[in-house]
Amino acid sequence: MNEFLLEAIKEAKTGLAEGGIPIGSVLVHDRKIIGRGHNRRVQNSSVILHGEMDALENAGRQSASVYSECVIYTTLSPCSMCSGTILLYGIPKVVIGENETFVGEEKLLKERGVEVVVINDPTCKEIMRSFIEANKDLWNEDIGV
Amino acid sequence: MNEFLLEAIKEAKTGLAEGGIPIGSVLVHDRKIIGRGHNRRVQNSSVILHGEMDALENAGRQSASVYSECVIYTTLSPCSMCSGTILLYGIPKVVIGENETFVGEEKLLKERGVEVVVINDPTCKEIMRSFIEANKDLWNEDIGV
Repeated sequence: MNEFLLEAIKEAKTGLAEGGIPIGSVLVHDRKIIGRGHNRRVQNSSVILHGEMDALENAGRQSASVYSECVIYTTLSPCSMCSGTILLYGIPKVVIGENETFVGEEKLLKERGVEVVVINDPTCKEIMRSFIEANKDLWNEDIGV
Repeated sequence: MNEFLLEAIKEAKTGLAEGGIPIGSVLVHDRKIIGRGHNRRVQNSSVILHGEMDALENAGRQSASVYSECVIYTTLSPCSMCSGTILLYGIPKVVIGENETFVGEEKLLKERGVEVVVINDPTCKEIMRSFIEANKDLWNEDIGV
């Protein structure tokens, strides 16, 4: 298991334990985690704190030169908001736990030169499968459906 | 002057008075403002609270059916993060104060079926022109440069 994806999964599990949507993310610079987070729709009534957004926010204000050397890990394929944010800050690489549950803007990211790696991790898939089975409406709200 | 763009400009001016980046936004449903906000990079050390994101966050959790009837007004052309969020929530129309200072993802929005209206408002342009002249580094940070 990739050590940073494992940390993103820990974040997803923390979110689940809080009653939230179990998606987690870490932002890594120079092989160190500089921001970590998880979806906070339920916990904070937030419509913008997806896992990736929370990780970026928790990393704080960084220079373009730092972002340009970062990798963002996320347990689930990033939606258009999170992908747009990755493009805004010029993060060159995204590592995705799984994209069976949901396929975000991977194509757009690749077209814009972002390296996209999909791990196809069974733990990530199972967390989302069981969550969505029990929380279909909440999940749809999170992806704007 | 469009009444809702005027409210977005008020938000931009509030941000400026707080020492922040002067970009404002309002989210309008059924001709009522349901969320308003402004860029909070400086005020909250936030990397995700652009004006549009703040307006959406302040509108709170809304159903897809509400978003599908909304118009978002913003003083400046929306960056890839804000545009991605507009796409995530299926907001069908964006009214932009100006796009001389910065051109965001207007082309992508249009390709995805979002109606994009640019007002080309002199007040919006002047607010950003004078701000960027005095705060070039801060502005670059906000757009990931």
